[in-house]
Amino acid sequence: MTILLSNDEIACLLNMKDVLEALETAYLEAAAGRAILGTRAEIITETTHPESVYQLKMMSSLISSLGVGAVRINSDILSFPTVGGKKRRKKVPLAPGDRWTGLVLLFSTRTGEPLMIFPDGVMQRMRVAGASALGAKYMAREDAKTVALIGSGWQAGAQAMAIAVVRNVEQIRVYSMTRNNRDNFCQQISPEIGVDMHACEDIENAVMGADIVLCATNSQSNVLFRKFIKPGMHISTIRDNEIELAAIKAADHVVMHDSSSMDFDHYNNTHGIKVADQKKEAGNSPDMAYLREVPTLADLITGSAKGRTSENDITCFLNYRGLAIQFAAVGAILYERAKARNIGNHMPTEWFTEDVLP
Amino acid sequence: MTILLSNDEIACLLNMKDVLEALETAYLEAAAGRAILGTRAEIITETTHPESVYQLKMMSSLISSLGVGAVRINSDILSFPTVGGKKRRKKVPLAPGDRWTGLVLLFSTRTGEPLMIFPDGVMQRMRVAGASALGAKYMAREDAKTVALIGSGWQAGAQAMAIAVVRNVEQIRVYSMTRNNRDNFCQQISPEIGVDMHACEDIENAVMGADIVLCATNSQSNVLFRKFIKPGMHISTIRDNEIELAAIKAADHVVMHDSSSMDFDHYNNTHGIKVADQKKEAGNSPDMAYLREVPTLADLITGSAKGRTSENDITCFLNYRGLAIQFAAVGAILYERAKARNIGNHMPTEWFTEDVLP
Repeated sequence: MTILLSNDEIACLLNMKDVLEALETAYLEAAAGRAILGTRAEIITETTHPESVYQLKMMSSLISSLGVGAVRINSDILSFPTVGGKKRRKKVPLAPGDRWTGLVLLFSTRTGEPLMIFPDGVMQRMRVAGASALGAKYMAREDAKTVALIGSGWQAGAQAMAIAVVRNVEQIRVYSMTRNNRDNFCQQISPEIGVDMHACEDIENAVMGADIVLCATNSQSNVLFRKFIKPGMHISTIRDNEIELAAIKAADHVVMHDSSSMDFDHYNNTHGIKVADQKKEAGNSPDMAYLREVPTLADLITGSAKGRTSENDITCFLNYRGLAIQFAAVGAILYERAKARNIGNHMPTEWFTEDVLP
Repeated sequence: MTILLSNDEIACLLNMKDVLEALETAYLEAAAGRAILGTRAEIITETTHPESVYQLKMMSSLISSLGVGAVRINSDILSFPTVGGKKRRKKVPLAPGDRWTGLVLLFSTRTGEPLMIFPDGVMQRMRVAGASALGAKYMAREDAKTVALIGSGWQAGAQAMAIAVVRNVEQIRVYSMTRNNRDNFCQQISPEIGVDMHACEDIENAVMGADIVLCATNSQSNVLFRKFIKPGMHISTIRDNEIELAAIKAADHVVMHDSSSMDFDHYNNTHGIKVADQKKEAGNSPDMAYLREVPTLADLITGSAKGRTSENDITCFLNYRGLAIQFAAVGAILYERAKARNIGNHMPTEWFTEDVLP
């Protein structure tokens, strides 16, 4: 059977601790040359929705020791509204029922068959937050207990859950632009993770005295600045421009998720549509070039790079763009759980395979 | 609804004439910059099946005027047996029920939603044969009526169907290595296409006096040689090494499906597994380098390249590796037909979309 899962089922089957373990395995396999990444593809064209473009994005990977390959496909209508004077990238939910389209397909490297098909949303934020938390695990002070969280959206929720797994977090201070959002966010997430959370009026107040600062916004411009950074602090980001370059440069140790993510060669044939150009400018600016040389998360996990050498070090983890090996590793656990507990829509594998030679 | 189709349903819904029309549209759109190709990904790793490797292959494209994007995924166990002294590439059907795994997903560029999911087999051979037939349409003599077909497998069947659409074919002479296969093939296909077909004992007899020679084997080594080629002949191939290089060089006009298919940069991270190396050697040999300069099928269709200038010209169409725009263009027609005739398994689109922000 090929298992079709929903996001709700995935949220039931996976917990953040499992995700962290699966991700550590994936990076160790990658470091040992046993996890393989496919070339990414991102193509952009016109769409009928006003002031928007259509983007089809694919990533893929294989982890032979787990016997799986994963393909993630995102099929998005992208718009770029200005909110509070800052430019944001917004995916417009135009599929029937006002929904988004992101799919992961998991294949067996032993038989070729499609094992599982599922929406990417829940796993997406768990693997992003999981990588951020692994960054903190290897870079933040052991005794870190106060966290500032910038952002109160979907990604921010997972960041709160994940950071609580790797440190004994006593308090999370949340800032986001809209008061209602940050208040609701704290009320909802705090009981889920059993950590005191409160909303702050501005970033400076949230960050002041924090041991760890996690940026998880959808802002295209800087939100965390050099002036807020204090000795001993660990800062992290999930998006190119969230942290001011001067703040990154102020860190004693900078680690990037995977420096190959700085290459934008996979943006091809975009008809000169501006979106791609903007991304290229952001990623390939000369200021950012030195980031190609920094260690990766895999280097931290294998011990070939040190995350922190003293209590007063400022450390910075750049969780730019994920890797498809995350979906393969977490997908492998998810598949075993769904199969064992008979959860999901179990469909005949014959529907997704064929008896003629392709 | 998201439509799930089977190969049998696709064979009912599509005919070769439609495919040829859809492909011509696709190449015109591509030439006008309105059809976009994603970077391909091919990744290879170990598998548990003896003397085999696992390969995950992805291609993608967008045709904005048709409102669709297509992703094709192949998840294959590859073995390389030697048959009749020649090396072949064989996909081993190891999915449940001894099946292969090749899927196409069609997305809307207007809403992002997945419109259709289907196995690639039937469309795969129709689009390969369709491109070969378009090559013949623009390159073979107008009065061509005798065809030699080398091969009697899945691809060869479609080649016979497609060539009969573009020329008034009176006879097809078939050669393949196993007598039984070629005899059965002729008996089966001849009534389907209403053309006299007969099996030949060797390639030389099949090719002698033919106006068009179509190679459609799965051989990794040469099957059509310089010595068989006569003035006025049109020759074509669907695989890198089927036609001897000297035979290609003997042609007055050589056209390649798409010269970008000569780049193998998408083979990455293959762990030094030999498969990839062999492919690289075949494709990137210095002898083949000049092929980068030859016109493409799109050039023929737009008229920017001439396929033939005299009755006695030898013409050669190299239908190496397909393009994902073929799946988008033919997929768009297929979707309209399946929807209009209510054919296939219509599943809730909610199963393949999500209400959380990916």
